[in-house]
Amino acid sequence: MNQQQLFEQILKKRSYLCIGLDTDLTKIPKHLLELDDPMFEFNKAIIDATHHLAIAYKPNLAFYEAEGSKGWASFEKTVKYIKDNYPEIFVIADAKRGDIGNTSNLYARAFFEKLPCDATTVAPYMGEDSVAPFLSFPGKWVILLDLTSNKGSSNFQHIVNAETGKELYQEVLIQSQSWGTEDNMMYVVGATQATKLAEIRQIVPNHFLLVPGVGAQGGSLEEVAKYGMTKECGLIVNSSRNIIYASNGPDFAEAAARAALTECQQPMEQSLHKKGLL
Amino acid sequence: MNQQQLFEQILKKRSYLCIGLDTDLTKIPKHLLELDDPMFEFNKAIIDATHHLAIAYKPNLAFYEAEGSKGWASFEKTVKYIKDNYPEIFVIADAKRGDIGNTSNLYARAFFEKLPCDATTVAPYMGEDSVAPFLSFPGKWVILLDLTSNKGSSNFQHIVNAETGKELYQEVLIQSQSWGTEDNMMYVVGATQATKLAEIRQIVPNHFLLVPGVGAQGGSLEEVAKYGMTKECGLIVNSSRNIIYASNGPDFAEAAARAALTECQQPMEQSLHKKGLL
Repeated sequence: MNQQQLFEQILKKRSYLCIGLDTDLTKIPKHLLELDDPMFEFNKAIIDATHHLAIAYKPNLAFYEAEGSKGWASFEKTVKYIKDNYPEIFVIADAKRGDIGNTSNLYARAFFEKLPCDATTVAPYMGEDSVAPFLSFPGKWVILLDLTSNKGSSNFQHIVNAETGKELYQEVLIQSQSWGTEDNMMYVVGATQATKLAEIRQIVPNHFLLVPGVGAQGGSLEEVAKYGMTKECGLIVNSSRNIIYASNGPDFAEAAARAALTECQQPMEQSLHKKGLL
Repeated sequence: MNQQQLFEQILKKRSYLCIGLDTDLTKIPKHLLELDDPMFEFNKAIIDATHHLAIAYKPNLAFYEAEGSKGWASFEKTVKYIKDNYPEIFVIADAKRGDIGNTSNLYARAFFEKLPCDATTVAPYMGEDSVAPFLSFPGKWVILLDLTSNKGSSNFQHIVNAETGKELYQEVLIQSQSWGTEDNMMYVVGATQATKLAEIRQIVPNHFLLVPGVGAQGGSLEEVAKYGMTKECGLIVNSSRNIIYASNGPDFAEAAARAALTECQQPMEQSLHKKGLL
C-alpha cells in the first residue's frame, strides 16, 4: 500500500481512525472466555462492527505475547482475518522492534512475509541498519518511534544535540528521512505532544504520522488535526481502550462501533471538511 | 538471581560465557528438520552439550517469531527446558522490548511470569516508565541497550547533550541508574566498542554488562576483559554463531561444546586468573 492509496481510503471512509486491538483477557466480556480463542473472537467481532469507520487496525504485540504462543496464534489469526475480509485496511503490528541488521530482517520477515501486516512500529535507538531491513519489503512500511505519548519521552527524546542544536526526536526525523521514502516510512508522534506537531511538520511536511494517545491518554483530536494535518491528511490517529472497551456486556461490538462513530469518525470527518479535503 | 549469585556461578564454571540461541532453520543440521520441533531439538542438544561451559543462554526472539506461533512455542519450550534442567543458568530473553508503562508491564509478564526468564533486553528510547515495569519483578533483570555493536550505533548513541556534555549512551547510563539497582539492571555494550569500556566503567563501576559482538562481529574478548572486568567480573560475554553453528553435521552439539571450550571458556578462565579472581 502506498501513501496515495492510504489517502484514498481516508477520503472514502471520511476517517483517519486506527483502532488499537489491545486485547486483554481480563477486560473482554466474560462470555467470550468460554470460546476456544477468546482474543480472536473479540477482535473479529470488533473488526466486523467497525471496519467501515476505520482505515487501520493496530494490534499491540505485548497483549498477545502476554498469553504466550496461544496469544501469538490469536495475533496471527487476527491479522489474516482482517486482510482476508477487508484487504483495503492497513494493518500495523505495533511491536516496537529493532535489532542488528540480520536480526531485524527476521522480524521483518515475521510481520511482512509470514503474515500480511502492512507496517510495523520500530524503535530508532540502534540506528539505520536496525531499521533498513524493514524497508526492503515492497509496499510495506516502517513506523518509527519519534516523540512518544508517555511521561518517559522526556528522558531522552528532548536532549539537544550540541552540534546541530536539534532535539533527539528531531534528529530521528532528519536522519531517517534518507533511509526511506514518504511511501514506506511514517513516524509515531503522541497526541499528548500536539503542540510540537507544527514544528515536526517543518521537518516532515508530507510524511504520514501515526498518532496514539487521543482519548484515554489525554490527547486532543482537534489539536492534532490543527497542527498535524497535511493536504493529503497525513494522519492516522489511534484509539484503543475508548473504543474496544466501550462496553463489556454482550453488546460490546455495537458499543465499540458507536464509540468509533461518535468519538472518532464524526469529529474526524469534520476536521477533514475544515481543512477542505472533503 | 542477584549479582552475587551470578558471580558465584562465574567462579564455579570459570566462565562468563552467554551462548546466543539464534536458532535459524536454514542453518541447523538437515536431519533435525524431520523432527516435530527442530528449533527446540537443536537448542536442547546445544544446551546439554554446553551447560557446564556457560553461565547464561540468550535466545533472540526474532529467530523464533520468524517461525510464527510455532516458533514462539519453541522459544517457550527452550526456556522451560533450561530452567527445569539447569536452574542455576541465567536465561535472557533478547527481545529489545519497550512500550508505554501499562504495555511494558504485559511484556514483563510474558517473560517473567508466564515464562521463567531471568532477564530481558529493553530499548531505552521511551524512557523511565517504559523500563520501570520490568524492574518490579523480584529477582528479574532489565538489560538496557546502551552502546550497541552495530554500525547504526553511530546514528544517535554518540549525540552530545548540549546541556551536560555527555553522549546519549552516557545519558542512558546516568539517568537509568536511579531506576534500578546493581541487582536488577545491566547494560548492553557491544564488544566492537571495547575501547569505550573504560569510560563506561567510570559511570557504572559495578554493574554487569552484557557484551555481544565477540567473534563473528569482530570484537576482541581480550580487550573486553581488559577494559570492562570488575573485581566481581561484571561481564557476561555473548557468542552465538561461532558456537552454535561450529558444525552443521550430526556432530553439531559436540562441535559447539568444543568451540565454547576453546574459543570462550578457556580464554575467559585465563582472563579471570589475570585479574586475580581465580
